[in-house]
Amino acid sequence: MIRPMREALTAEAFAGYGEVVEVPETGGRIINSGTAWRYDDVAALALDREGGRALLSLFRVQPALFPLRCTRLERHPLSSQLFLPLGERPFLVVVALGRDAPDPATLRVFVTNGHQGVNYAPGTWHHPTLALEVETDFLVLGRKDTHPADNCDEVPFQGDAVFELT
Amino acid sequence: MIRPMREALTAEAFAGYGEVVEVPETGGRIINSGTAWRYDDVAALALDREGGRALLSLFRVQPALFPLRCTRLERHPLSSQLFLPLGERPFLVVVALGRDAPDPATLRVFVTNGHQGVNYAPGTWHHPTLALEVETDFLVLGRKDTHPADNCDEVPFQGDAVFELT
Repeated sequence: MIRPMREALTAEAFAGYGEVVEVPETGGRIINSGTAWRYDDVAALALDREGGRALLSLFRVQPALFPLRCTRLERHPLSSQLFLPLGERPFLVVVALGRDAPDPATLRVFVTNGHQGVNYAPGTWHHPTLALEVETDFLVLGRKDTHPADNCDEVPFQGDAVFELT
Repeated sequence: MIRPMREALTAEAFAGYGEVVEVPETGGRIINSGTAWRYDDVAALALDREGGRALLSLFRVQPALFPLRCTRLERHPLSSQLFLPLGERPFLVVVALGRDAPDPATLRVFVTNGHQGVNYAPGTWHHPTLALEVETDFLVLGRKDTHPADNCDEVPFQGDAVFELT
């Protein structure tokens, strides 16, 4: 049985999977007569391939129950998908690598710091969103698919992985 | 001098300016093995006209100082623009109507309930974002403009309008 270690989410650690969406420590520019800092391109959006369009959704996610067995992962080959909690709440981000299916040996579990979202790069294997402790609302920015089946691979996860709460 | 009344933000009141972005009381569908409710198309995104693309930004906005004099408004003729606070914090939404310039008589000031964002419809006159009491981070979804000057009209506000804190 795999019991993946929980890692703190950082841009560096997540670089192979997409972007961490958070206010950067540097960069940006002052706008609106000095009342705001603006940071552009905080996620590499890929939403318009093959006739796709941006789709804005809200997810109301129940807190995950632990220990939690990872039984499936999914990916969206044609588009990025962004998750950002509305209430500055931590959540779990579970990803894996693999060409045709996720490789169990590559499974990683990140925990956010409450001020972070994630943008999965196209084709990144990931677990459905896992809220922690309380019901959490997420903004989700993905692709309005003309043929949804073309843009969602959902597969059983062959490794016997169990996530613990702590 | 105009001292606009502050109104609670509702979808109905905001219908002429865009959408209120919040978890709806009805609708949606269950996903992810029953762990989440999903609500799609919570904002009418218009980001790809005339070669535009979606641009994801973060704004860190200082709290507004009151009384606040409204001296200018802006609009984006080619695209929608969405503002959603990351910390479930209330903010002010100031809009007006007018073809070539905002008509002072139409100025309206909405206050959100903390769980709301707004998506301005293309061409909607609005004030730069006004945070209340504390520094507030916003997700902003707009258009990556090839020629920014084509997509931002910023004009002096001719009415003598002052917003109070209460």
